[in-house]
This record gives sequence, C-alpha cells and structure tokens, in this order.
Amino acid sequence: MTDPDNGGLVGVWLIGARGSVATTAITGAAALRDRIVAPAGCVTESPEFPDSGLPEFAQLVFGGHDVAETPLRKRAEQLEHAGLLPRGLPELVSADLSAADSRILPGIADSEQHHDRQELVAELVRDLRSFRQTHGLARVVVVNLSDTEAPHPERAEHSDLRSLRRALREQRQEKVLAPSSLYACAALLANCSYADFTPSTGARLPALDELARRNGVPYAGSDGKTGETLVKSALLPMFSSRALHIRSWSGTNLLGGGDGRNLSDPTNVTSKTSSKHRVVDESLGYPVDGRVHIDYVPDLGESKTAWDHISFAGFLGNGMTMQFTWQGRDSALAAPLVLDLARLLSRAHERGHRGALRELGFFFKDPVGLDEHRLPAQFEMLRSFARELGKDE
Amino acid sequence: MTDPDNGGLVGVWLIGARGSVATTAITGAAALRDRIVAPAGCVTESPEFPDSGLPEFAQLVFGGHDVAETPLRKRAEQLEHAGLLPRGLPELVSADLSAADSRILPGIADSEQHHDRQELVAELVRDLRSFRQTHGLARVVVVNLSDTEAPHPERAEHSDLRSLRRALREQRQEKVLAPSSLYACAALLANCSYADFTPSTGARLPALDELARRNGVPYAGSDGKTGETLVKSALLPMFSSRALHIRSWSGTNLLGGGDGRNLSDPTNVTSKTSSKHRVVDESLGYPVDGRVHIDYVPDLGESKTAWDHISFAGFLGNGMTMQFTWQGRDSALAAPLVLDLARLLSRAHERGHRGALRELGFFFKDPVGLDEHRLPAQFEMLRSFARELGKDE
Amino acid sequence: MTDPDNGGLVGVWLIGARGSVATTAITGAAALRDRIVAPAGCVTESPEFPDSGLPEFAQLVFGGHDVAETPLRKRAEQLEHAGLLPRGLPELVSADLSAADSRILPGIADSEQHHDRQELVAELVRDLRSFRQTHGLARVVVVNLSDTEAPHPERAEHSDLRSLRRALREQRQEKVLAPSSLYACAALLANCSYADFTPSTGARLPALDELARRNGVPYAGSDGKTGETLVKSALLPMFSSRALHIRSWSGTNLLGGGDGRNLSDPTNVTSKTSSKHRVVDESLGYPVDGRVHIDYVPDLGESKTAWDHISFAGFLGNGMTMQFTWQGRDSALAAPLVLDLARLLSRAHERGHRGALRELGFFFKDPVGLDEHRLPAQFEMLRSFARELGKDE
Amino acid sequence: MTDPDNGGLVGVWLIGARGSVATTAITGAAALRDRIVAPAGCVTESPEFPDSGLPEFAQLVFGGHDVAETPLRKRAEQLEHAGLLPRGLPELVSADLSAADSRILPGIADSEQHHDRQELVAELVRDLRSFRQTHGLARVVVVNLSDTEAPHPERAEHSDLRSLRRALREQRQEKVLAPSSLYACAALLANCSYADFTPSTGARLPALDELARRNGVPYAGSDGKTGETLVKSALLPMFSSRALHIRSWSGTNLLGGGDGRNLSDPTNVTSKTSSKHRVVDESLGYPVDGRVHIDYVPDLGESKTAWDHISFAGFLGNGMTMQFTWQGRDSALAAPLVLDLARLLSRAHERGHRGALRELGFFFKDPVGLDEHRLPAQFEMLRSFARELGKDE
Ligand SMILES: NC(=O)c1ccc[n+]([C@@H]2O[C@H](COP(=O)([O-])OP(=O)(O)OC[C@H]3O[C@@H](n4cnc5c(N)ncnc54)[C@H](O)[C@@H]3O)[C@@H](O)[C@H]2O)c1
Ligand SMILES: NC(=O)c1ccc[n+]([C@@H]2O[C@H](COP(=O)([O-])OP(=O)(O)OC[C@H]3O[C@@H](n4cnc5c(N)ncnc54)[C@H](O)[C@@H]3O)[C@@H](O)[C@H]2O)c1
Ligand SMILES: NC(=O)c1ccc[n+]([C@@H]2O[C@H](COP(=O)([O-])OP(=O)(O)OC[C@H]3O[C@@H](n4cnc5c(N)ncnc54)[C@H](O)[C@@H]3O)[C@@H](O)[C@H]2O)c1
Ligand SMILES: NC(=O)c1ccc[n+]([C@@H]2O[C@H](COP(=O)([O-])OP(=O)(O)OC[C@H]3O[C@@H](n4cnc5c(N)ncnc54)[C@H](O)[C@@H]3O)[C@@H](O)[C@H]2O)c1
Ligand code: NA
Ligand code: NA
Repeated sequence: MTDPDNGGLVGVWLIGARGSVATTAITGAAALRDRIVAPAGCVTESPEFPDSGLPEFAQLVFGGHDVAETPLRKRAEQLEHAGLLPRGLPELVSADLSAADSRILPGIADSEQHHDRQELVAELVRDLRSFRQTHGLARVVVVNLSDTEAPHPERAEHSDLRSLRRALREQRQEKVLAPSSLYACAALLANCSYADFTPSTGARLPALDELARRNGVPYAGSDGKTGETLVKSALLPMFSSRALHIRSWSGTNLLGGGDGRNLSDPTNVTSKTSSKHRVVDESLGYPVDGRVHIDYVPDLGESKTAWDHISFAGFLGNGMTMQFTWQGRDSALAAPLVLDLARLLSRAHERGHRGALRELGFFFKDPVGLDEHRLPAQFEMLRSFARELGKDE
Repeated sequence: MTDPDNGGLVGVWLIGARGSVATTAITGAAALRDRIVAPAGCVTESPEFPDSGLPEFAQLVFGGHDVAETPLRKRAEQLEHAGLLPRGLPELVSADLSAADSRILPGIADSEQHHDRQELVAELVRDLRSFRQTHGLARVVVVNLSDTEAPHPERAEHSDLRSLRRALREQRQEKVLAPSSLYACAALLANCSYADFTPSTGARLPALDELARRNGVPYAGSDGKTGETLVKSALLPMFSSRALHIRSWSGTNLLGGGDGRNLSDPTNVTSKTSSKHRVVDESLGYPVDGRVHIDYVPDLGESKTAWDHISFAGFLGNGMTMQFTWQGRDSALAAPLVLDLARLLSRAHERGHRGALRELGFFFKDPVGLDEHRLPAQFEMLRSFARELGKDE
Repeated sequence: MTDPDNGGLVGVWLIGARGSVATTAITGAAALRDRIVAPAGCVTESPEFPDSGLPEFAQLVFGGHDVAETPLRKRAEQLEHAGLLPRGLPELVSADLSAADSRILPGIADSEQHHDRQELVAELVRDLRSFRQTHGLARVVVVNLSDTEAPHPERAEHSDLRSLRRALREQRQEKVLAPSSLYACAALLANCSYADFTPSTGARLPALDELARRNGVPYAGSDGKTGETLVKSALLPMFSSRALHIRSWSGTNLLGGGDGRNLSDPTNVTSKTSSKHRVVDESLGYPVDGRVHIDYVPDLGESKTAWDHISFAGFLGNGMTMQFTWQGRDSALAAPLVLDLARLLSRAHERGHRGALRELGFFFKDPVGLDEHRLPAQFEMLRSFARELGKDE
Repeated sequence: MTDPDNGGLVGVWLIGARGSVATTAITGAAALRDRIVAPAGCVTESPEFPDSGLPEFAQLVFGGHDVAETPLRKRAEQLEHAGLLPRGLPELVSADLSAADSRILPGIADSEQHHDRQELVAELVRDLRSFRQTHGLARVVVVNLSDTEAPHPERAEHSDLRSLRRALREQRQEKVLAPSSLYACAALLANCSYADFTPSTGARLPALDELARRNGVPYAGSDGKTGETLVKSALLPMFSSRALHIRSWSGTNLLGGGDGRNLSDPTNVTSKTSSKHRVVDESLGYPVDGRVHIDYVPDLGESKTAWDHISFAGFLGNGMTMQFTWQGRDSALAAPLVLDLARLLSRAHERGHRGALRELGFFFKDPVGLDEHRLPAQFEMLRSFARELGKDE
C-alpha cells in the first residue's frame, strides 16, 4: 500500500478530539495499523490507490483540542456499548487511546467573548508547534471535528489577509472570527495543513485562503459527505445522464448522538441544511423544490436514518418517484474519511500543494473551490490526484 | 441538434411494433418532431450530445413485425387511458400512427415448429429489403421489442457462421435458433443494424457476431436498463468508491402491463432475473447474497414498483442498510432509449462501425461485449463515442 | 341501504364549497346516486351499516359558502385533469354541478376586520334559513371544508354563551370569533347540525357547545382523519396490545394541492401538526419523541406522500423499527367521509341527539369530546351508534 | 399481577428447546422473575391483564426436547453476541440456563424412518410424565418451537382418533404422523396442554382434536404472529372499516438466523407462505392479488426485514398505495408470546378448558378454530377470555 519508511511521523491534530468521530478515527487507526480489522470504509486503502506515497497508519500520531474532558478510553467504551466499536477493541488499543488522550489540550469556546482573539490564536499556534517538536513530526494535519457552529456573520476584514491581521490586532475583544476560523488560522500560521469536516466557516475566508497560499499549506473542506448527500451525489448524475427532469427532492434526517443534539439547535442546523441543499441545485443547474429536515431523535443513538423522496419527469411528461431510506452509523462513515484526509493532505503538503485542494471534493458536501457535485466525477478527480501524488518528484 | 439534410430517411423497424414500448416510441417520436413535448428522458437530445450527426426525428420512418393485430392507434389510446401518453396526443399524431401501422407485418412465433427456418429467415429479409426500397431509406435499424423469450438451449451450430448456415439449411424443421435470433439473423443478412432491448438471445451468438462483422453491421444489446438495474448501476460505484462492502442486495419488482404478464411465466422470467443479478456480482468482483423477484401485479397497470434492500459494512465492521423504492413507468423509461439507440446505431453504421457496439452499454442491463456495469463509466464511454461519431470523416 | 321515502330532502351546506374536497363530494354524491361508480371509501355504504335510517344520496341537496368564484364545473374539470375524478364524470353530472353552484353564496373572510361580527353571523343565518326554505329541506347539515385557519387566540368571552352573545353585541368590530366559529355559530343558531372537517376552532368553544345543547343540535369534529393519522390510529393499538414500547414516532408529509399551499404558511400549519401529534401521546399515555413535518411540494398535485418512522422496544430492550409510506389522494379520502358525516349528523339530529357527538370520533384526528384515539375502538363506537340510530323510535 | 402462592410449579416443555426463540424465552423468564428487565413485549404482563390467576414467572420450570446439542448457555452467548440478549444477561442467569439445559432430552427427527411410531410416542409420553413427577409440577404446557416442517400429506387415518390409534399400532414403520404431530399426540396423551408456535401440522388433525377434548386438555396454534402478518392484521381492519378496497398486497421477507436457513428450503417454506397469505383473503372476504416471498439473507443475523406493498382503491376508483418496512428481531418478538401462551394455557387447563382455544387466536398467523384475523377483534376476545379466567370458580 504505502512505503513504511517514506518519511517519519505525521501528526493528526483533531479539533473535537474527544467526539464520536474523532474517537472512532483514533481507535480505528490503531486497529488498522495492527491489522485487527479489514479496512472497509477507508478510501485510500482500496486497491485504487496503490502508490501515492501516503503515510501509513503506523506513522500517524494523534493529538488535539477539545472542550470536553471525558477521557478517550471512556468515550471509546461508550461507543463500544452503542455497538459502534467492536466489542473488546477499546481494550485492545487502550495504550493508543491513553497516549492520544495525553496529547489533547483544552480548546477554545465561542462563549469566550472577553478574550483577546490574537492571543487565542497565538496560543493555538504554540500548541501545534509544541506537538510537532515534541514528537519530531515531519508534518501536521489539523482536522476540525468539533461541533457545528451557528453561521458566523460576514465581515469586511475577512476579505484579505492584511485587513484580517489588523482586525485581530486592533479589535481584540471582538468576535472577528468564529472559533472554527481561529483554529484554521492557527493551523495555517503554524504551517499545518487543514481540513474542515464540519460545515463551519473554518478556512473558507479569502483572508485565510491568502494565508494558506502564502504559507504554502494546502487545505480542504467542508462538511464530510457521509449519508443522504453522498447518495444524492451518486443519484443526481444518474437522473441527469438519462435526461430525467427532477421536480422535487425532499429529505428528512433523523439522528441521535452528540451531533444530533447540537443540530437540534435551530441556528446551528442552518449551516447544515443549506450545504445539504446546495448539492441538488448546483448539480442540476435548475432550482428544485423540496426541503431538508434534520431532527434530533435521541433513541436512535449513534445511528441515523434519512428518508428522501424524489419526484421526476420522464418521456412525455410521465411523473415518477424514487424514495430511499439510508440507515447509517455516522461516525463509522466519517472516521475513515478523516484518516483518508489526513493521509492525503499530509502527502499533498509534502508535494508542495497549497491553497484550496479542490481535488478532495469527493469527501465533502460543500467542496471548497469546486462546483462539481457529482460523485463519479469527483472520484475521478481524486484518483488522478492520488496518482499524481505518487509520481516521482 | 442534428443536421436535417444529412442523409435522407432512416428506417426504424421494431420487432413487437404494437407493444407498449414500441407504441410509446412511435407516438413520442412524432411529438418530439413536432415539438409538442419537451425531450425529457431522451439521452441524445440532452445538451451533452451536440454534434454527432445523428438523424433527426423528422428523418425516422417506423415499421415492424408483430404477432398482435390491435392497430397502433388503438394501442395508443389504451396507453393514453392508462395515463402513459398525454391526453389528446394519440389524436394529434394519428396520421403518424396509421402510417406506421400500415408498415407492420405479421411476425414469427416460437410455436411455429413445422416451419422451415431457412425460409422464415428469408421472408424476414425480404420484408426488411422491401421496407428499405419502398421508402428510399438510407439505412434501417432493427430493434427487438417483442416479448422476452424463455432461454434458448445452446447448440454447437451457434459457434460459427458456417455451422449455423449449414444447420439452417439442413435441419430446416428444427429450432436451431430462437425467434429473437431469427430476427437478428435476418437483420444482419439484410444489412440492417440491430439492437436487442430484451434479454432474449438475439444476436448474441458467435455465429451472428461473425455475420455482423463480416457484413459491416453494428449491433447492440441486451435488455434495456430502465429501473432497478439503472439505480443499481448508479449506486454500486458509490459503495465501491467509498470502500463500503456490500453484504447482500435483495430486490422485488412488482409490475403490471404486458411485460409483467409475460414475465409471470416462470421460464421467461429466468432470462431477466439472471441479467438483473449479474450487474451486482460483476461490478463488485465478489459474490453478493440476495435474490431478485419479479411479480406480476395486474392492478399496477403500466407502472412498476421495485424495492431494493442493500446491507453493507463500513469501518470496523459496522453494518448499515440502504433501501429504495423505485416507482417508474416502464414504457416511458424505455421508449426514448429506443429512439436513442436507433439514432446512434444508424450513425454508427454510417460511420463504418461493425460488430458488437460496447460503447452503447450505458443503455443495457447486460451490455454485449462489456464488463463495465458502472453507470458513470458507461456514460463517459457513450459521450466520447458520440463525440467520435460527430467528427469529420 | 336506506329508505328512499324516509323523510324528504336533506341539505348539505359546505363552507369552502368550491374546494377540492367539496367538489369531489358533490360530484361523487351524484355519481353514487346514479350508481355510476362503486361506493368505495364511503363508510356508511358498507355492509356494516344496514338499517340506520340514513338519508339516501338522492335526498341530498348541496349548497354552501365560498370566497372563490371558479364555478364547480370548472373545478371538477381541473380535478378530472389531475386524475382525481374519473374521465368524463364531470360531464355526466354537469347538471348537478350547475345546480349546486347556483346555491353557493359568498363566504366571509378573516381579513374582514371592519365588519360588524353580529351582523356577519346574522347574514349567515339568513343564508342557511333561506336554503332550507327554498328547497323545503327537512334538515340541514353544515360541514366546514374551507382553508385551515391560523390558531385563534382564546378569549374570556368563549367560556359561556351569555358572555359570547354580549361580546358579539358590544365588541362588534373586534375579532371575537375566528371565521370558522362564526360559521359554526350561525349553523347552530339556524338549527343546523355542524361538522368541522378542518382543525380550525369552529364549534369547539364552551359557549358554542352550550348553544348546540340548548338548541338541540348535534355537532362533530375536528380535522378529518384521512392519511398518516389514520394509519397511526390503526398501528398504535397494535403496538400497545403487544406491549411494545414506542420510543419515537417521526413523520414527514409532502403535499401539493390547495391544502398544501395553505399549510405551507407556518402559522396555519400549527393547528394541523399539533392535532396530528396529540394522537400518539394521548393513545399511549406516555410522551413520545419525534416531530411531524408538513411540506408543500407543488408537483405532487392532488397527491400526498407521508413517511413515518417508528422506533420501538420489545422483549429485553430489543430496539426495532417500522417505517411506512402512505401515498394517498387526499380529496378522494376525504370526500366520502363528508358524505358519511352529513348522513349521520342528519339522522342523529332527527333522532334528537344534541351537543358534541363523540361517537363520530372515528372520522377525526382530534375527536371532540373523546379521548379514545384507537381506530378499532372508535369503529366499534360508530357501529353501535349507527345501530342505535336505526332502532324504532 | 399474579398470586405467587396460587398453585405450585408449572412446567414449560419446549420442543426445539435450544433454538433462538426457546433460549430467549428461558433467559427472559429468569430476567423477568428477578425484575432485571421491564416486561416489554409480554402481553400478559401489561396492565390489561390484572387478575387472571396466571402462574408467575417464578413458578415456571423449563425443559424440552431438541435434536441439537449446543448447551443453552452457549446458545445464549451467541444471542448475546448478536445483540439479541443484553450484554451480561446470560451470565446473570447462568444457573437457570444450566438447570433448564439439564432437562433437555433428545428429540425425534423426521428422518427416523425405521422407527416404530407407537414406540416413539410412548417414549415422549414417558419423558413428559417423568418431567412432571420429578419436579412436582401441577401442570405441564408443551410448546412447539422446533423447525418448521414440510407440509405432511393428509391421510385417512387422521380423521378420527380410533383410526389414528389403529394406524399407529399397525403401520408402525410408516410416517403416519409428522414429527410435530407425534409431539402433539404425546403431549395430549400425557395430559399436557399444547401450543404450536410453528406452522407445522402439530395438533391440527381431527383425530388429535378428539383426543384433546376427550382428555380434557386445551391446545392452541398455529404459527406465532410476530412480524409482517401482525402488521397485516392491524392494517386490514383499517382498510375495511374505511371501505377502502384492497387491490393487491405483496410482501417480501428477508431473514437471517436458523429459521431463515430452514425456510430457505423451498418445501418447508410452503407451510409458511400459505399461512401468511390466508390472512389477507380470509379477512377481506375477496381474493387479493400478490405474492409473499421469504428469502434467507444470512448477513441479517437475528434480524428480519419485511417490505409490503399494498395497492388500494378509494372514492371514485382512485388508486393509492401504502408501503411499509418492518425491521424486527424475530426471537425477541416471539419469546414473550411463548411465555404468554404457557401462562394462559396452564390457567385455561386448570379452569377446565379443553380442545382448540380459539380465544388465543391473537397470537397466531393461522388461528385454530377461528376465522377472525383482525387483530383488534382478536385482542378483545383475548381480554374477555383472560377476565373469565380470573373469575372465582
Ligand atoms: N457522518 C458524520 O459523522 C459527520 C458528517 C459530516 C460532518 N460531521 C461533523 O463532524 C463533527 C463531529 O461530529 P461528532 O459526531 O463527532 O460530534 P460529537 O458531538 O460527538 O463531537 C464533537 C466534539 O467537539 C467538541 N467541541 C465542541 N466545541 C469545541 C470547541 N470549541 N473546541 C474544541 N472542541 C469542541 C465536543 O466537546 C465534542 O467532543 C460535527 O460538527 C458534525 O456535524 C459529521
Ligand atoms: N422498461 C421497459 O419497458 C423494458 C426494459 C427492458 C426490457 N424491456 C423489454 O421490452 C419488451 C417489450 O416490452 P413491452 O412492455 O412493450 O411489452 P408488450 O407486451 O407491451 O409488447 C410486446 C409486443 O411484442 C409482440 N410479440 C410477441 N411475440 C412476438 C413475436 N414472436 N414476433 C413479433 N412480435 C411479437 C407482442 O404481440 C406485443 O405487441 C419486453 O421483452 C420487455 O421485457 C422493456
Ligand atoms: N384529506 C383531506 O383532504 C383533508 C383531511 C383533513 C382536513 N382537511 C381540510 O379540509 C379543508 C379543505 O381541503 P381542500 O383540499 O378541499 O382545500 P381547498 O384549498 O381545495 O379548498 C378550500 C376552499 O375553501 C375556500 N375558502 C377559504 N376561505 C374561506 C372562507 N373564509 N369562507 C368560505 N370558503 C373559504 C377556498 O376558496 C377553497 O375553495 C382544509 O382545511 C383541509 O385542511 C382535508
Ligand atoms: N418470530 C419468530 O421467531 C417466529 C414466528 C413464528 C413462528 N416461528 C417458528 O418458531 C420456530 C423456532 O424458531 P427459531 O428462530 O427459534 O428457530 P431455530 O432454528 O433457532 O430453533 C429451532 C430448534 O428446533 C430444533 N429442532 C429441529 N428439529 C427438531 C425436532 N425434530 N425435534 C426437536 N427439536 C428440533 C433445532 O435443533 C433448533 O434448536 C420455527 O419453526 C419458526 O418458524 C418463529
Ligand atoms: Na379528543
Ligand atoms: Na383459522
């Protein structure tokens, strides 16, 4: 698969490192390294990605920020109990969990209104630098896996790096940036590549894009594509390649878990439903009726059920429908993609890629720098990018 | 779209010309020519197929064989009543329906055991030649839209053209070929291109392939991909590109209509369920559990409902499921593809293509000459083929 | 079924007489009278209701109020075009449609803020009396089929008849009553029985209940039970009789049509979702998680699709789920119930029943005077009530 | 609930005592006795069955026949692993499992063609008598939970007890009775009440019915109603009470587990699909189109998924559909009913009931002695029967 000796250790720094997705990713990476499990769900482990020079699981060192304090081992046991992690696995990899846990530092919260933003960023930068130095890491990838934020107001200072820097310096008490963007800003300043697995703003500001390009760091996002939207992006090209006209596309998502609880807050959910809907309209090139609901249903636990109803017209105006029910386990779908992103970003960084990595759009609901939402086309882009990464320098 | 003057009239000869699909295709072609309806469902009319030199609808002349005698106009009214054709349309295009009806000749039936096969073929060839001459057609495309046959036993004579010819000559009373193959054989002998929209054997015999290549005629098949299998071929690449492991894929198809009645015969349905299942196994490269049922449910009329249940495993062995319900109107899905096939085959014939046209695999459940079942890849093949067709000679 | 000579003509006065449900009911009553169609969907025509002394279809005379002006014949043609009425039926019963149309008077609208409420009620009473006299009707039943209103604020004056009368007299310009309650009030004053097929307030005020009992008039409501809630009330007793514990019940309703458009207004929909949810909680006796969404999806036309997801626990805490999709045509489900209600209320009125008729709870989502939401129990109540109605006086 | 001192110990003898349902029932009874779990799924524990004099869980003593040898404790652990039994439960009740296991004796198999049938029955009778004596049981209930048999040919000897006795005596080597009937015959001879939870013939022969009545023993059956058919029997009355006409009812059942494997044998499945279908036709009183499929899908493990598609007609012939997906865990649905049946039969036996207990039809797909398939009506029968059982003698 990958060359074990091709470049030392790679740091994977997770924002929200004690969440379900992060815990599953850390546990799974250890299990894959030890070949305890098959690599199902892990795109970069499939036979299509043979020689891209990606770091091996054994090379990954995990750490991160979180505002929660439940130890990783305990979180893993909760997920084991919920049936998400195989029985006995947390125990088998408990050394890895403890090690990663010891590298989790307190994160910053949105409520910290009386903090000096510039100082907050500086602290995060120090955390990342110290992580790199302590463990002798060749590169560090930061992945945002924390709770989805409410949409952050646009501000003039976001438009270029110079204005942003000035604003951070001068309006220190003000919320110039959302927490996700503070994290992204720190990552880029500390020369770490960055991926936003949530729909939060993160690195998606002209000023931060400028920073990434200037510092020679690649970044990717936003919003991991793991369920209803994944299916959408596979079905939309089917309809359009057959010249079938979509009349309406309606969806309801029922989800439990921490993510469900957070999204049950009406302001937070906005970021999500809008990135979910954009896929349809942008893919088809015409506006399509239909709403997307996200409901928190605690008893579903770590599972999620989505129902979609698609009404479409065919030859001579014949109306037809397709419905699907997707019953997924979100963290199990997301975690391997986090590993994929870390491996790909690390290698892309090594190969000198900088700025928005549109070639990673395959992984996201709302791919930065990319208008292409069709899964097959995104997969082709990813494959040729991976081949590129593997070529001799 | 196409150049109206680029080559005179093109004949479209339908086996089963009074069936639902055929009637819908003939009615729809007239409506599209007169721009009464939008070209939904018609692949070759979409913006992706701009300059391929395909014949226009106004250039198509319809005729065919059938064993039924209900006039096309009456069949069209039945389909209007069933809601498949827009109200008033049969009346609007009644001249076209009568004209086509007058070009429908009696077909041959499987039961004709006391007939001389060689003579049967010769008659069919005369029918096709006379159709071409009478209407001054530049080319003729034959499309098999008759009832699905029971699987026909393999015979040694099928393996090469010479043996087949001898067998037809010498074992005149024997069922050397299934009716679909008699039709295909006649088409190829008469220098007509041929498509098999049914799962019947048709041209899929080494001997007939030899004949097609020798006579410089292209052919395509088998079994139009319009419902459950279409969705399968769009979803399978989604699962595999995400490295999700399919554990089982089960399906039930409920259908009314003439096709439903015919498939309620257990021997006829065999051809169908096996071509439906092959898609999954061949796409994934590993055997997948699960059965496909086809049930005749008369009250569904011209509609069809398929339910599929897919069980798959993701990261760390997490089991998940997807289900879908497809509620389609089969003839409305099939008819525009028949027009697409006729246009593409006619042009391919004109450009000198011969033998199995694997590039048309996009249209079929069981694409002849092609192992690729993934819809997106098939669509790419089709698009580049169409671009090729449009290039200056 | 019923005795043709048992008591002259019965008036059926529909509020919203030009809506989809009303038009379907009027058209259908004529078709049933002439035995052009089978009585599917009509409860009182089933063999279970033999000798209840209900008026026959031939005895019914239709009229009503509406704020729309499209003639009934035209509305019927629209519904014919949408496939809701059989082709040709509007023409066959066009005399009935014209006659009913000539008996539709302008209704009152919520926006009429500068009107004298007392005078509005008096006018409605005059309309009803004149209807009865002109046609020599033995009795008149008023059924509210107009658009669902936004919830009307509770007021002290609603608590008894005397206060209400005073308020109407003295606060003439104020919205003491919602339009639905003005209609209900007028009906009861004019000695007409009344049914509220919508979730609007209508007769459900202590003051109006007092009026009904005092005037010897029966009334029924609210909110016709025709789709998702009907299924709920059939499934809930299944779960509880098997001691299966419902954990969550979530639902999404997609509907086109005029009702859909009206319910797409967030304030109007409130009346509906709350009556839809109450059924679950009240039936089970414990609160159940889950939300109900109602989305307007215009391309569904006169159809409606509801998806429900039920999560429940069985033996030893085993979690299981049931999902259903209901694809109904709302007006076709509602219209025969309107006829059932008219027949039953007329007969109940004749037999001296007064006040809230809880025995008709079978027909409603939010049955007035009844806590029993289980369909089988409601059906038993209805059947014994109907038997009662048939007994010799 | 029940009076702990009301009558000593009651034996529950399970045919197929090491199967999934049996193991779950034995484990669950211990857990309920110790109040480790809530009694979800257990009908006789619900508040509707207060004082019927049923034996308590603490009074039940389990034993049985099986042809398998895996100890109960091990079977329970397999079910724990499959998520059917709560984690840790088998350990908690391991003493009960060992005790029950020590009371499981080798069963008889269909293949035993060279055995003397009369002797086989006599042995079974001895087993049952010894069970009763050893444990000082007041009564014994035998419940058949073994694999579903292929339909057994009807024979003249089945028509009365005398002929059956003679046949057993004289045609000793012949398969006069299916194994399920040998078990039933032995139970009745040994004065044990009997329930058939499978669709096998069991006690459903005139000769055995005669025996039951003569010996003063009640029996019940057949085929536990736990999934698709349960839902059917709840939905059918909904459709019929609303006068909605069912046009077709189609179903597909996907199941893993041992039952699934056994039913994948085409001859065994016949007993099942036919009892599943009868419910629809018998309930409605008119024949309904549609087939029922049962597919074995091993990866579903102890779960089962059924999809049903119902097409129905309403007012003015409007066609509508309902679909449902039932995702159940069969053994968790069946096991509590086994306990219900044991308790009810024991009490009924005590109170002198004999012959077919039609009042227990609520529990069965194909209720013996009963034409009523509507769940609500069956539940009413059950409730009044239970009240009856509680009355003072
Ligand atoms: N399939 C998927 O699971 C999926 C798909 C797309 C996007 N996402 C997104 O991924 C994120 C993580 O999902 P999850 O299920 O693991 O959620 P989770 O609630 O289990 O974990 C979120 C973690 O973030 C931490 N956190 C919250 N605010 C923080 C802050 N300011 N700084 C640092 N840490 C903070 C929380 O303490 C928690 O440990 C969510 O935003 C979710 O929307 C998940
Ligand atoms: N979506 C689709 O509709 C779809 C998809 C794939 C394949 N197909 C296949 O297309 C075919 C046509 O479907 P349909 O719905 O129009 O069926 P249909 O029953 O309406 O029409 C079949 C026609 O073939 C005629 N026919 C039968 N035997 C013949 C013979 N020996 N010679 C000439 N004519 C003969 C019949 O008289 C009839 O008019 C079927 O084989 C079906 O399996 C349809
Ligand atoms: N299955 C069902 O169709 C169903 C079930 C339960 C309740 N309902 C309720 O029945 C009602 C009618 O449904 P529909 O589909 O016929 O709707 P519709 O929009 O087709 O008809 C409503 C009619 O009411 C008229 N109207 C509006 N305001 C009025 C007023 N103030 N006075 C008199 N007329 C007025 C409108 O002009 C229109 O003709 C709705 O409130 C709906 O919520 C319908
Ligand atoms: N929801 C449900 O689970 C449900 C509903 C209705 C009916 N049933 C029926 O209940 C039965 C048991 O189901 P299960 O899931 O426990 O199946 P299972 O395969 O797990 O158990 C069947 C047991 O019967 C034993 N057996 C087989 N032949 C025997 C014989 N001749 N004598 C004694 N024992 C024998 C087997 O060894 C096995 O231990 C099946 O017939 C099934 O069709 C189950
Ligand atoms: Na009530
Ligand atoms: Na019966």
